[in-house]
Amino acid sequence: MTVYLVGAGPGDPGLITVRGLELVRRCDAVVYDTLASDELVDEVPADALRISREGLRQHEIDRLLVELGRSGLEVVRLKGGDPFLFGRGAEEALALEAAGVACEVVPGVSALSAAPAGAGVPVTHRGLSDRVTVVSGHSAQGDELDYEALVRAGGTLVVFMGRTVLGRIASGLIAAGMRPSAPVLLASRATCPGERHVVTTLAACGERAAELDSPTLVVVGDVVSLAHGARADTRPARAA
Amino acid sequence: MTVYLVGAGPGDPGLITVRGLELVRRCDAVVYDTLASDELVDEVPADALRISREGLRQHEIDRLLVELGRSGLEVVRLKGGDPFLFGRGAEEALALEAAGVACEVVPGVSALSAAPAGAGVPVTHRGLSDRVTVVSGHSAQGDELDYEALVRAGGTLVVFMGRTVLGRIASGLIAAGMRPSAPVLLASRATCPGERHVVTTLAACGERAAELDSPTLVVVGDVVSLAHGARADTRPARAA
Repeated sequence: MTVYLVGAGPGDPGLITVRGLELVRRCDAVVYDTLASDELVDEVPADALRISREGLRQHEIDRLLVELGRSGLEVVRLKGGDPFLFGRGAEEALALEAAGVACEVVPGVSALSAAPAGAGVPVTHRGLSDRVTVVSGHSAQGDELDYEALVRAGGTLVVFMGRTVLGRIASGLIAAGMRPSAPVLLASRATCPGERHVVTTLAACGERAAELDSPTLVVVGDVVSLAHGARADTRPARAA
Repeated sequence: MTVYLVGAGPGDPGLITVRGLELVRRCDAVVYDTLASDELVDEVPADALRISREGLRQHEIDRLLVELGRSGLEVVRLKGGDPFLFGRGAEEALALEAAGVACEVVPGVSALSAAPAGAGVPVTHRGLSDRVTVVSGHSAQGDELDYEALVRAGGTLVVFMGRTVLGRIASGLIAAGMRPSAPVLLASRATCPGERHVVTTLAACGERAAELDSPTLVVVGDVVSLAHGARADTRPARAA
């Protein structure tokens, strides 16, 4: 049988794809991320296996998927966002392929543009930005990001999983020549209950990020000037 | 009433979001891109207005949406991919906001990761690429792309709307120091009937792109080595 790597989208259960929901509704087993909404997990058939991936390491998830697939079940691996954009989906696909288990990727809506869209911010916009650079905050731990390359890239910078290391990233960007007043959007719990948007500056964003829950997507660049109410939010970081 | 900017996804009608399809099925009018599938346009109610945007300039689309919204209709603006990632959706949103017409963005699955996923290629992968740079081929016309910055960025490079200018982009990247043997994936008509994937090299990709139909997404980087059958495709460009 097949293991489907299904992107659940950014959080709102209405933002899964039609194909993804069909597969969830007919599967024999679901292995789900904590970021996938409870409403979606509740869509699986009543007699289906429901397995949270919480606490499992990546190689344990890979092995679990292989075992479920080999046992003849139709399996949905429900992943937050899109499986192939910071989703580690290809690691699962390669493990399945190596084990001879059929695998199909069903792409999902990524937070990349869905999270800023909730604040009215496009990641590209004529006259403001014609390119996007996407990095992970994990790259700021251990081997450092190439901040000069990021500054030189221009356009919009989007950081996944960057909330807890944002102060370090901002310092690196400023040291590499980005202006401290560059506008920054922090989009927390995008498309979910408790969603919050903070419009701030590069200099202040590290401190502001501490107020927010995970997941928080970070957007740096002139497109942030288009945010709903961007001008109203002039609250300095220290007064927060 | 409201104008909904709905991402139709990369082409396969099953890859629209559940929320997007709900809105399509109950709207009074749809204004659709040629990239949106006929199957989705056929989902609008029988008595709804159906307007193709083909031949309309952006400011004419903006004005049409404002007029339809002001006339009290519930309007779906059905856009290929995601409205806020090279979709010019923010231009429409700002025009509606300026005219006092309510607007809501319903994000969609972008070709950014859906198109390479169809060939088994993730845009990020542990050990191969932890960042993605996304540009438009339009930037290679008129003012040139900063090829040195693109090469220095490392990771995966994704080019939207780059098919017809790919030879020029490849030459620019090679002149800026990228190796001519860098692997390139061309994903044409992703998730649609007639989908084609070509795995080639930076040196040969311009010529290979001429074989393909629009839309074609271009992916440059080591992640392309993961493509299904990547090793089998050793056909040199001149023998094509």
